[in-house]
Amino acid sequence: MIGVDWGTSSFRAYRLREGAIIDRIETRGGILGIPTGAFPAALRAALAPWLAAGESEILMCGMVGSRQGWAEAPYLPCPASPAEIAAAALTLRFEGARVRLLPGLVTRGLDGVPDVMRGEETKLAGLLAMLGPGPALVCLPGTHSKWARLEAGRITGFTTHMTGELRAVLLDHSILGRLAQPAPPDEAAFRRGLDRAAAPGGLAQHLFGTRALGLLGELPVTATESYLSGLLIGAEIAAAARPGEAVHLAGAEALVARYALALAATGHPCQRHDEDVVAQGLVRLAVMAG
Amino acid sequence: MIGVDWGTSSFRAYRLREGAIIDRIETRGGILGIPTGAFPAALRAALAPWLAAGESEILMCGMVGSRQGWAEAPYLPCPASPAEIAAAALTLRFEGARVRLLPGLVTRGLDGVPDVMRGEETKLAGLLAMLGPGPALVCLPGTHSKWARLEAGRITGFTTHMTGELRAVLLDHSILGRLAQPAPPDEAAFRRGLDRAAAPGGLAQHLFGTRALGLLGELPVTATESYLSGLLIGAEIAAAARPGEAVHLAGAEALVARYALALAATGHPCQRHDEDVVAQGLVRLAVMAG
Repeated sequence: MIGVDWGTSSFRAYRLREGAIIDRIETRGGILGIPTGAFPAALRAALAPWLAAGESEILMCGMVGSRQGWAEAPYLPCPASPAEIAAAALTLRFEGARVRLLPGLVTRGLDGVPDVMRGEETKLAGLLAMLGPGPALVCLPGTHSKWARLEAGRITGFTTHMTGELRAVLLDHSILGRLAQPAPPDEAAFRRGLDRAAAPGGLAQHLFGTRALGLLGELPVTATESYLSGLLIGAEIAAAARPGEAVHLAGAEALVARYALALAATGHPCQRHDEDVVAQGLVRLAVMAG
Repeated sequence: MIGVDWGTSSFRAYRLREGAIIDRIETRGGILGIPTGAFPAALRAALAPWLAAGESEILMCGMVGSRQGWAEAPYLPCPASPAEIAAAALTLRFEGARVRLLPGLVTRGLDGVPDVMRGEETKLAGLLAMLGPGPALVCLPGTHSKWARLEAGRITGFTTHMTGELRAVLLDHSILGRLAQPAPPDEAAFRRGLDRAAAPGGLAQHLFGTRALGLLGELPVTATESYLSGLLIGAEIAAAARPGEAVHLAGAEALVARYALALAATGHPCQRHDEDVVAQGLVRLAVMAG
C-alpha cells in the first residue's frame, strides 16, 4: 500500500510492505500550489513509479482533506480512537487504485472554543500503537505545535500553539527582527529565553523584553533568534503540560532536539520518537479501514 | 515655551503659556525619516512660526533622544521622580533657542531583564502632577503599551507589552490575517476575545483558537480583528494588573475607549485621561529643569 501525508507545503509518500517503509517520496508539492480539480493528476504524477509497479491502495492524511484540498473530510470530534478515524475515511474517485482520505479531529476547551488538527491524528495513531493504552502526553512541535492527550487507546483532546509561526512573523516583520541576525543556535541564549518565559508577565511583555535587552547591549544580535525561541517554546510548554509531566516528542530531528532540551530544562522527562510515526499510523489506519 | 514629543513616526509640538496649550503642530515627521545631522534643520522648519514669534525655550521627549535620534540621552533608572528626569535633560546645540532633551527610563524585573521607555516618562510626569503622591497604576495603550506604577511621587517601575504591534503583524503576515476582513469594531467579538484570554492556555494557543473558530464557521471574518484585539488586550491586562486593581488610562481616544471597555469587563475600575498629559508633563519638567 501507499501512505501519503499531504500538507499545506509538503507532500510525503511512503511505500509500505507489511508495515515497513520500503521506499519514500518527499516533495514541496503541498496543496497550496494545486488548483481545484488538479489533485488526481498531481497524485498520479507523484506516485507514477509505484502505481506502475502495481500498487493499488492509497491512504492519505493531512490538509489534502481540508476545504482547500482534494475533498473535505469533516473533522471527527474527540475523544476519537484510531478505529473511529479509519471508519470515517472518504473514498475518492481515482482510476486504477482505491484512494481514501482520513478526517481531521476537532476538540473543544471547557469554554467551548474549538481546536483542530489534520494529519497529526495519523501520527498519534502511530504513537498509540507504540505506547499502548496508558495515558500519555504527546508533543508534535512545528509551525503550529500540537499537544495531545492519549488515554485508553483514544485521543481524548489536544491544544495547538502558534509557536513556529509566531517566531517567523516576529523575526520577519516585527521590530524584533531588526535586532536579530541569522546565526547558528545559541544554547545559552535559548536557556535565557526559557528562564524568562517562567518569570511573571505575559508573552507580549517578554517579547518586548527581547528588544530592551538588545537596545541595552545585553543580548547580541546573533543570540536574538535563539532567545526568542526559548521564550516561545518555554511559554508553550508551560501552557500545555502540567509541572513535571512526562512528554512524548515526535517530529523533525532538529526541532525535536530543541524541544527535548527545553523539556529537560523545565523539569519534564521526555521520550523522543522519529517522524516516521506518521507512516506507522497510516499502516495502522489502513488495516483498520480494511 | 515649546514642548515637543518627537517619536518614531510622529512629531507633536505644543506652544505653552503658563501651563496651557495655546497652539499645536502635529505631523508624521517621525525620527525614522530624518537623516543623522538633519535634526536641527527639521526642528527649525517645523517650528518656524513659533520661533519667529520669539519662542526661545524648547523641551523635547521621545525617540528623538534615542541612538537613532538627534542625540542619545541615556536611560535613567527607576525609581525616578520628575525632578530627577528634568535634571538629566541634555542641552543641544541650536542657534536662537535653548533646546533640551529629556532622558528615557529603564527598569528591571526581579530576574534582571530590563524594560525601557522614551516619551512615556513625560506623560507620567504629567499624570503624577494630576494624581498626587498616592500609589497608582497607569496604562498608556499603544503599539507598545506601557503600564507604570507610581508611588510617593515617583515612577517606581513599568512593563511594556507588544500588544499593538502583535495585532498588526498577525493580521498582516500570519495565517490569522487570511481569516480577517476589515470591519468596524465588533463589541461582542471583542468581549469573546477577552473571555477567551481568561481561559487556560497561553496566548499562542488562544491565537490558534481564532483560526479554529474561523475554519468551523464560528467567527465571521468581519469579527476576527475585534476578537483578536480582545485576546491580546485581555492577556495584557491579566499580565500587568492585579485582580480588581484600579487603572488610570491615558492616550488616543479610540484606543482608550477600547481599553476602558476591556478593563470594565475584567473587573478593573478605571479613570480616563486625555492625551494632552504629555504637554502637562513637558510644562512640569520644564519648570523643574529651570
